[in-house]
Amino acid sequence: MTPGTAAAPETVVLDLNADLGEGFGRWRLTDDDALLSVVTSANVACGFHGGDPSTMRRVCGTAAERGVGIGAQVSYRDLAGFGRRAMDVPPQELADEIAYQIGALEIFARAAGARVAYVKPHGALYNRSVHDAEQAAAVVEGIRLAGGALPVLGLPGSRLHEAAQRAGLPVVAEAFADRAYTAAGTLVPRHEPGAVVTDPDAVVQRSLGLARDRAVTAIGGQRVPVRVRSLCVHGDTPGAAALARRVRDELEAAGVRLEAFA
Amino acid sequence: MTPGTAAAPETVVLDLNADLGEGFGRWRLTDDDALLSVVTSANVACGFHGGDPSTMRRVCGTAAERGVGIGAQVSYRDLAGFGRRAMDVPPQELADEIAYQIGALEIFARAAGARVAYVKPHGALYNRSVHDAEQAAAVVEGIRLAGGALPVLGLPGSRLHEAAQRAGLPVVAEAFADRAYTAAGTLVPRHEPGAVVTDPDAVVQRSLGLARDRAVTAIGGQRVPVRVRSLCVHGDTPGAAALARRVRDELEAAGVRLEAFA
Amino acid sequence: MTPGTAAAPETVVLDLNADLGEGFGRWRLTDDDALLSVVTSANVACGFHGGDPSTMRRVCGTAAERGVGIGAQVSYRDLAGFGRRAMDVPPQELADEIAYQIGALEIFARAAGARVAYVKPHGALYNRSVHDAEQAAAVVEGIRLAGGALPVLGLPGSRLHEAAQRAGLPVVAEAFADRAYTAAGTLVPRHEPGAVVTDPDAVVQRSLGLARDRAVTAIGGQRVPVRVRSLCVHGDTPGAAALARRVRDELEAAGVRLEAFA
Amino acid sequence: MTPGTAAAPETVVLDLNADLGEGFGRWRLTDDDALLSVVTSANVACGFHGGDPSTMRRVCGTAAERGVGIGAQVSYRDLAGFGRRAMDVPPQELADEIAYQIGALEIFARAAGARVAYVKPHGALYNRSVHDAEQAAAVVEGIRLAGGALPVLGLPGSRLHEAAQRAGLPVVAEAFADRAYTAAGTLVPRHEPGAVVTDPDAVVQRSLGLARDRAVTAIGGQRVPVRVRSLCVHGDTPGAAALARRVRDELEAAGVRLEAFA
Repeated sequence: MTPGTAAAPETVVLDLNADLGEGFGRWRLTDDDALLSVVTSANVACGFHGGDPSTMRRVCGTAAERGVGIGAQVSYRDLAGFGRRAMDVPPQELADEIAYQIGALEIFARAAGARVAYVKPHGALYNRSVHDAEQAAAVVEGIRLAGGALPVLGLPGSRLHEAAQRAGLPVVAEAFADRAYTAAGTLVPRHEPGAVVTDPDAVVQRSLGLARDRAVTAIGGQRVPVRVRSLCVHGDTPGAAALARRVRDELEAAGVRLEAFA
Repeated sequence: MTPGTAAAPETVVLDLNADLGEGFGRWRLTDDDALLSVVTSANVACGFHGGDPSTMRRVCGTAAERGVGIGAQVSYRDLAGFGRRAMDVPPQELADEIAYQIGALEIFARAAGARVAYVKPHGALYNRSVHDAEQAAAVVEGIRLAGGALPVLGLPGSRLHEAAQRAGLPVVAEAFADRAYTAAGTLVPRHEPGAVVTDPDAVVQRSLGLARDRAVTAIGGQRVPVRVRSLCVHGDTPGAAALARRVRDELEAAGVRLEAFA
Repeated sequence: MTPGTAAAPETVVLDLNADLGEGFGRWRLTDDDALLSVVTSANVACGFHGGDPSTMRRVCGTAAERGVGIGAQVSYRDLAGFGRRAMDVPPQELADEIAYQIGALEIFARAAGARVAYVKPHGALYNRSVHDAEQAAAVVEGIRLAGGALPVLGLPGSRLHEAAQRAGLPVVAEAFADRAYTAAGTLVPRHEPGAVVTDPDAVVQRSLGLARDRAVTAIGGQRVPVRVRSLCVHGDTPGAAALARRVRDELEAAGVRLEAFA
Repeated sequence: MTPGTAAAPETVVLDLNADLGEGFGRWRLTDDDALLSVVTSANVACGFHGGDPSTMRRVCGTAAERGVGIGAQVSYRDLAGFGRRAMDVPPQELADEIAYQIGALEIFARAAGARVAYVKPHGALYNRSVHDAEQAAAVVEGIRLAGGALPVLGLPGSRLHEAAQRAGLPVVAEAFADRAYTAAGTLVPRHEPGAVVTDPDAVVQRSLGLARDRAVTAIGGQRVPVRVRSLCVHGDTPGAAALARRVRDELEAAGVRLEAFA
C-alpha cells in the first residue's frame, strides 16, 4: 500500500455452499428451492448416499437458472447409511465410483446449460479424506478419470487438498460457522462436547468473523486464523434455509461479496 | 455403375453387437475380453441391471483400444431382477434414469479416449419399448436429455424407433440370428415353442442369410425380408464368445465387411 | 335376543390401520410415534420400499407396548420408486421376496414380545393384486411359505382376497375414508378427478358412515354398502396423524369400538 | 473301554462348513448343489452381500433334505463390494441389520422343515469382529435380538467369540486348511506372502493334520496346536467343490467322523 493514501478496504469475496438434492425417490431432506436462493454453490448429491436422477435434474435446472455453481457431492455407495459409514473401498474401485457419480451429474448440469464446476466429498468420505492419504488419492484419481481439472472443495490442510495439489487440481478451502475449532485450526470432532454450534446468533457472528477477520474463536478461547474462500451452511436440519438466509443477509450487510468460486 | 459392365456385387457391411460388462462387483457374467475381440459394437451395462463402475472403465478401455463402438445399454433400476422385470416407471423418472446411465458411461468412454456412440435398452425395457409408445418416448427423452443425438439401436418398426425418428435421432436396425421370426418379420415371443434357435450351425446359417440375402426363414417356413445394419450376438451363455467368433469368421469368409455403425 | 325386548344396538367393532415405519436410513416419512397412539393395526414397512431394520425394531417395540397389531407391509423391491412402480416379478420370485420380508419383520415383532399378525401389500403390489390373479396368488404363496396362516388385509372382492381364501387364509376387508367409491363399490382410480377426498371433515363423515351405516356415498351420489372390519388411514402426508386422531375420536364418540382384528 | 485292551483311539468328530448361496439374481458364484453333498454345515448368504430370497429358499430346501446344518452368513449391507469392505456401522444399526438377516433366513429354514442353527459373519464383518470388540458385540446383540441362543461359528480367541461367551451364546471354533498360520496360532493376513495355501495336496494334508493331530505347521515351520470343531472349505473358486469333496473323502478314510455341530 502506498504511504500517504488512505487504505481502501479490501472487499471480501466469499462463496456459500450447501448440500442439496439429498432426498431419494419419495423421501425429501433438504429444502432445495429455498437454499438455491441463498447459496452460491450447490453440492449436489449424485445418487450414492442420496439424490435420484429426477432430483439431480431439477436441482441442476434451478441452480443454472439462478447462477448457482454446481458441484458433485460424491459419496460412498451407502443409501442405507446416508454415506455416513466409513468404508474400506479399494482405491481403484473408489476412484471409479467417484468418476461414475461425476459423470451422472455432468449430464444433468449440461442439460441445464451448465457444467459440473467442482467436487466435494460427502459425509464419511469427506471426513476420511481429511486424514487418510490413500482414500484422498483415490478421490483425486476419480476426479482425474472424469476429465477436466475440477477444483476440490474441502478443509485446508486436508490430505484431500494435498493430493489434489499434487495432481495439479485447484483446491478451494472452506470453513464451517457451526463447528467448533481447535487452537490448531482443525475441527473439534463431532462426538466431543461443544463440537457443534447450535445457537443461530453464534453461527451468524462466527460467519461474520470468518469473512471479515479471517479468524474464528477456538473452543479454548484463542483466536485462530482461518482463511477460506467458501463457507459451508447446512441444509438438512429444520430451519436450515432460514439460518442460511440470515447468514447471507448479514454478510452482505457487512460488505462481503458473495460469489461462487468456480 | 457403368452401363454394359457386369454389376459388381455390393459389399455387405454389417455390425456385430453384444451385451458386455454385465457383471456386478464380485459377480461375472460375460467374457468381456473375448467378446471385445469379436464384436464391432459393445452394449455396455451402466449399473442399473448390472455393470459396476470398475467394469465400465475396463470395458470402455478395451473397446477403445480395439476400435469397438461403445453403446449405453440402459435399463430399469433392477439389480435383483437383472433388468428383466418390466416396471411401470413414470415417463419423466424413466427419462432421468436413462440420462443418468448415459452420463455415467460417458465419463468412462471419454477417459478411454472414446465417446458413447449409441444407446440400446436392455431386457424388459428393450421388450417394452418395442410396443409401449409411452415408455419408448421416455427412453428417447432420456437420450435427448443426455445431449448430442445418439443413434438408437433396436428392432425395425418398434415404437422405440418411431419415437427416435420423431425426435430426429438416427435409428439403427438390428436382427437376432438366434431368434425365430414370424411371417410378419417380428420376433416370436420367447415363451413360445421354437422361439430361440439353439443349434450353433443354424445360428451361423441364419447369420449368413441375414447378411447376404437380407432375409430369414420364418418359423412357418416363409422367406421374410429383414434388412438390418447390425446383428446381435449373445454373450451371457456358456460358449457364447466362441459362437460369436464363428459367426464373425463365416461372415468375413462370405465377403461381409464387419464395421461399427457409429 | 329375548323376544319382546327392544333390540340393543349392535356395537360396531372397527380396526384402524395405517402404514408405518416408511422411512429409510436418514429419511423419515411417517410420524410413527403419533400414529401408534391412534391406530389399532400398524402396517410396518419391511425394507423393500422403505423401512430399515432399526426402524422396524423401534416400530415393533412401540406397537407391542401399546397393544397395536403388527402387520407386514410387503412390497416390490423398489426403494427408488417407493414400491409404487408395478413390476412383472415372476411369481416364484415374488413369493420368495414376500416370505423374506415377513421373516425379517417377524424377528423384530418377536423381539418385542409380539408376532406378525397379518400381511398387507404396499403400493403397486397392493393395486396390482386387486386385479392380477397371478401376482395375487404369488403374494399368498409367499405368506404360505412364511408359515402360519396369516390374515390378509385388503380390498373386499380383490383377487388377493380370492387367492387367500382358496389357500385357507383368513381375509380382512378394509375401506378408505379418503377415497371415492364407484356405484359398484370399487375404488375410483387415483388418476381420475375426485378420486381422493382431501377435505378433513368429509373424511371424518365418511369414516362415521362406513362404521355406523356400513355404507358410503359413491362418486355418482348413490348409496353403496361397504362392509369392512378395518379402516385405512394415511400417515404419510402432513397433518395425517392429526386427522387420524380426529377420525378415531369421532368414531369412539359415536360408540364404535376400535379394536385390532388379529 | 475294556480293561486290558489297548486304548482305542478317540474318534475325531469334525464339521465341514462352506459359504453357499452367494449368487444374486442372475449371477451365480458357488456350486451350491455340489457343496451341499460335501459339507455338514452351510453358511447361507442372507441378501446383504449376496443371496437373494429364491436362492435362500432353494439352498435351505436342499440343505434340509440332506441333513446339512443351516447357518446365517450375515454381512454388512454391501452388494457392490460383496461384503468385503469394512464399514463403520453404528453398533445398534449393525445389530438390527444382523437380526434382519437372521429373520429372513429363518423363514426359509422353517419352510424347509429346519431351523437356523448358527451364525457366521461374512467377509469384512468376519475379519473385523476378530479384533474389534465393539462390532463383535454388535453382532452378538443382533443374534440376541433374533432370539434363541444361536451358536457363533468363528475363530477361537476372536473378540467375536469372547463377546458371544459373555452373552451366554455357545461358540464353535473353526480352522482354515488353506490359510497359513502364525506361530501364535492366528491367521497370516491375506495380503502377506504365503498367506493362502493354493496347492490342493497341501490343503488336504493340512486338513488331515488339523483333524487328527489338532495342529498345523505354522508359516515359520513350528508346530502349532489348533483345536477346532469345524473346518471351513471355500466354495467360490473354480474346482472348489471338487477339492472340498477330496478333503471330505480323505478325512473319512482317516477315520474322522463328519458331523454338524448344531
